[in-house]
Amino acid sequence: MQNKEMLTLVIFSGDLDKLLAAFIIATGAAASGMQVNMFFTFWGLKLLQRADAGTKGLNWMQKLFSLFVKPGSERRPISKLNMFGMGAAMMKKIMKKSKMPTLGEMILTAKSLNVKLTACSTSMNILGISRESLIPEVEHVAGVASFLADSQQSHTTLFI
Amino acid sequence: MQNKEMLTLVIFSGDLDKLLAAFIIATGAAASGMQVNMFFTFWGLKLLQRADAGTKGLNWMQKLFSLFVKPGSERRPISKLNMFGMGAAMMKKIMKKSKMPTLGEMILTAKSLNVKLTACSTSMNILGISRESLIPEVEHVAGVASFLADSQQSHTTLFI
Amino acid sequence: MQNKEMLTLVIFSGDLDKLLAAFIIATGAAASGMQVNMFFTFWGLKLLQRADAGTKGLNWMQKLFSLFVKPGSERRPISKLNMFGMGAAMMKKIMKKSKMPTLGEMILTAKSLNVKLTACSTSMNILGISRESLIPEVEHVAGVASFLADSQQSHTTLFI
Repeated sequence: MQNKEMLTLVIFSGDLDKLLAAFIIATGAAASGMQVNMFFTFWGLKLLQRADAGTKGLNWMQKLFSLFVKPGSERRPISKLNMFGMGAAMMKKIMKKSKMPTLGEMILTAKSLNVKLTACSTSMNILGISRESLIPEVEHVAGVASFLADSQQSHTTLFI
Repeated sequence: MQNKEMLTLVIFSGDLDKLLAAFIIATGAAASGMQVNMFFTFWGLKLLQRADAGTKGLNWMQKLFSLFVKPGSERRPISKLNMFGMGAAMMKKIMKKSKMPTLGEMILTAKSLNVKLTACSTSMNILGISRESLIPEVEHVAGVASFLADSQQSHTTLFI
Repeated sequence: MQNKEMLTLVIFSGDLDKLLAAFIIATGAAASGMQVNMFFTFWGLKLLQRADAGTKGLNWMQKLFSLFVKPGSERRPISKLNMFGMGAAMMKKIMKKSKMPTLGEMILTAKSLNVKLTACSTSMNILGISRESLIPEVEHVAGVASFLADSQQSHTTLFI
């Protein structure tokens, strides 16, 4: 049965601007009483990786990917005008001026509002991301079946 | 209650090709009798800005953003192969040849079909977009709560 | 009426990584018994084009587009770090190592699970893609009305 109070987000992107939009929607919904599920896949997983995640155990191709796409909430590029990080740095400064929380703070707020953060096991396999390299806020690692079950109960599911 | 006749679109992208897809879906749905809500956020807001919107009152970071991402329906880049505007110009020529309406015309069509155009207040704050710089077709400025209320009533909500 | 067992995906992107995510969701859903509709539009259509599709009958602008965005499942770029195809080649190698199916194999799996593959007629017109240049797995060519009818019956619709 579909639940009028459940929202599910697939977070495919690892870009700062899209992640901000996702967390503004997620925390807004959770604050108003909805159960919110965020299912992180592909580049979105980089947000959930510890900033000090190493590359041990990766094959050279996975190493190369992790060299170019840095882990952690502090190092997300923006989808437009990133200009080697300058655009992202500027957006973060603007957010600070507007007294907006950082991505890292938004993750904590989401957790405190019981947003369910799930890391996609298939993508972890492809990108060589281990369970240990994820931040402790991630409680669930699951595949597409888990996402489908959530979306089936949700009034809205977005792919971001 | 979910309404079989309501469609909500979050327009995050400011790219010509994605905006075309969004307006084709929106006007198609509205023409067939659905109530359609378009919620413009981040780069999507640039579509709703007047082409002559100045940069008065912006801090230097917001000015820099508005320098690179031009306002108005005529100056949208495309998501692939933009090549400093050449790709976008070509796509517009192809559309003209195919006798398709321009983005500007699609906004007017959407309005005439009672599509609700809402500008996201949080993004306006971040990007330094004032109410006065928006085109008159935008009647609503609202935050995430308004979007969530719409999506809860919609049979389909898309993030574009 | 909305159907708890129907899923609809709009495939706007032609990028390898997004297409993989789309087909993992689509085949996962179809394998668990859902009716799945994939509606391919804009760059997503390039996946459904035969690799040997020529440029006969195209105007020069459409030719230029098809020169830069190659047709077929083997030549999809990735959305990040494509680096003239190097990134895409690496991702395909990683997938092979992880014993994941290729995009071409995923299309066949989707077909065998009765996923409905529809090519968007409006986009075909814009990009100059003829019915004959599509792979035989595509059975349907339709416009936005067909997509809207599907999404109205689906518990989840994603724009990818």
